[in-house]
Amino acid sequence: MPELRKDPVIGRWVIIATERNKRPSDFTAAKAIPAVDRLVCPFCPGNEDKTPVETLAYREAGTQPNAPGWRVRVVPNKFPALRVEGGLDREGEGLYDKMNGVGAHEVIIETPDHNQTLSTLTAKELEDVLWSYRDRILDLKKDKRFRFILIFKNKGEAAGATVEHTHSQLIALPIVPRHVLAELHGAKEYYKFKERCIYCDIVRQELNTRIRVVIENEQYLCITPYAARFPFETWILPKSHEPYFENSQKHEFEALSRILREILKRQDKALNFPSYNFIIHSSPINHDYNYHDEDYYHWHLEIMPRLTTVAGFERGTGFYINPTPPEDAAKFLRELDIDMK
Amino acid sequence: MPELRKDPVIGRWVIIATERNKRPSDFTAAKAIPAVDRLVCPFCPGNEDKTPVETLAYREAGTQPNAPGWRVRVVPNKFPALRVEGGLDREGEGLYDKMNGVGAHEVIIETPDHNQTLSTLTAKELEDVLWSYRDRILDLKKDKRFRFILIFKNKGEAAGATVEHTHSQLIALPIVPRHVLAELHGAKEYYKFKERCIYCDIVRQELNTRIRVVIENEQYLCITPYAARFPFETWILPKSHEPYFENSQKHEFEALSRILREILKRQDKALNFPSYNFIIHSSPINHDYNYHDEDYYHWHLEIMPRLTTVAGFERGTGFYINPTPPEDAAKFLRELDIDMK
Repeated sequence: MPELRKDPVIGRWVIIATERNKRPSDFTAAKAIPAVDRLVCPFCPGNEDKTPVETLAYREAGTQPNAPGWRVRVVPNKFPALRVEGGLDREGEGLYDKMNGVGAHEVIIETPDHNQTLSTLTAKELEDVLWSYRDRILDLKKDKRFRFILIFKNKGEAAGATVEHTHSQLIALPIVPRHVLAELHGAKEYYKFKERCIYCDIVRQELNTRIRVVIENEQYLCITPYAARFPFETWILPKSHEPYFENSQKHEFEALSRILREILKRQDKALNFPSYNFIIHSSPINHDYNYHDEDYYHWHLEIMPRLTTVAGFERGTGFYINPTPPEDAAKFLRELDIDMK
Repeated sequence: MPELRKDPVIGRWVIIATERNKRPSDFTAAKAIPAVDRLVCPFCPGNEDKTPVETLAYREAGTQPNAPGWRVRVVPNKFPALRVEGGLDREGEGLYDKMNGVGAHEVIIETPDHNQTLSTLTAKELEDVLWSYRDRILDLKKDKRFRFILIFKNKGEAAGATVEHTHSQLIALPIVPRHVLAELHGAKEYYKFKERCIYCDIVRQELNTRIRVVIENEQYLCITPYAARFPFETWILPKSHEPYFENSQKHEFEALSRILREILKRQDKALNFPSYNFIIHSSPINHDYNYHDEDYYHWHLEIMPRLTTVAGFERGTGFYINPTPPEDAAKFLRELDIDMK
């Protein structure tokens, strides 16, 4: 019998189609993005002039900005969806509402090496990527027009990536998006009722039953979520309560880098280097706080391999069909033998 | 300057990236689904035994059920996401909620002719498809376990279709999905404030400004929505208030068939036979009614060509980036010269 499961935070129902029960080998492999010559890749060292001027770089002592010598480099998106300049100028148009597309859209170039992916970086290199996320968030938070900063990654063509050289993206928005508001709202209602953070309760329950635990370390837990929308979807959550990704401490970023690296390696091995998206869900910034917002929201990272096509049903309802029970996905990912070198 | 636009019903923001301004020729053509021999196509006449037993067929007098002679044929999905048998058996699992995957999942085979698509049917044939939607909805409404019936179509591989022979699908659900609840909620809030249906107001405003009107007839209006998520997204709305698709009258289905046929032909010509999804948004059934639900919701059909990849940003936020302003898409679709034969 297929099972309907409800996401405990936002109330989204998912059909876990147990009878289809797809195994990793049932999904076709990701299509590669057309390879680009290093000489023309805008993210390779030596081509720094092909991007806008950098907003951040971690680089070797003595090297110049916008020149080789960097380990991680952050630049504005050359084709931004939003523009940093100007006011919001909210206005109506009959019954409709609009405002200027004010925001920041940046690209985090995770390594100078065109041959690497996020999962093949060393734990130290990956930790630098996490620090660059944090540093850009802290800088952009100062701009009081922004309400939400999204860090995300599109890997592979099926996930919407258009450049092969490994990178993540940051978008700072003047509004809090609807999905985020729904999460905040659900977490708040639970908090009002129970006086506990729902994500803290999820961590406790998952550590107790362990059927959806993939891996863990001292600070972080990686699970397949109970109402997973996608086959082999995984989430990383801090074990202790923390509303803001960017407030994580040094030893936490070190542990986060290790767990993220391991789950990406497991995912690569299980699914043959799939296309995927990941998204950091963190608290809004410059938000109107009330009812102890910081007590009930808990940042986490969601990783979604792109193995299936989202069709009319999902688009029409926000109701997903997942052909792989998350308990099966967790077991498969957990029991893989992987090389952590 | 890019523009942020808010969907007036559900409050979803969209970035209209005016500077990218993609024209139809900027999108790559749809990939065809691998062609299948008529002898093995499960939806071709003569192969009726390759599907479950039909739940409805419009057929020539004197022909037998589950045999050739039908014009439209409805069958249960051979690989259903949900099962008709059994109770819901709602239960908790710690803090999680689940229930049995009870529901109906049917396939509407729109024509016996493997060479046709929905847009190449005659207006009369297309009207029969609409009647079959209605007849199945009326029948399934009798089952008090169901709360919502979704009619949708996945055309082409990029839209999630797996069978080439033209067909639509129906899913009856024991719950009202989150996206639908958000639409109902938004429409209700507007009604409480204005005592008018928001969709009726949208129809009035669009007929007044006309910049997003593609085509219309006596009964229906086809527009590109103000906060369109996707390039060349179009909606068909009844000009007068009607909460239920299935309550449309005979002359309305006749007019709906004509406008749907024409917009699909325009879309095919503009975008070179794109993959697309369409979805009928109609009121929930067997719903707990209060505050005049039937006064504020207004059924409509949303057509979404699949030209772009939904990437991490959209998945993380429910916030879309649309590179084609809907006014430009409407003008392009409106001014095409098409052959309505």
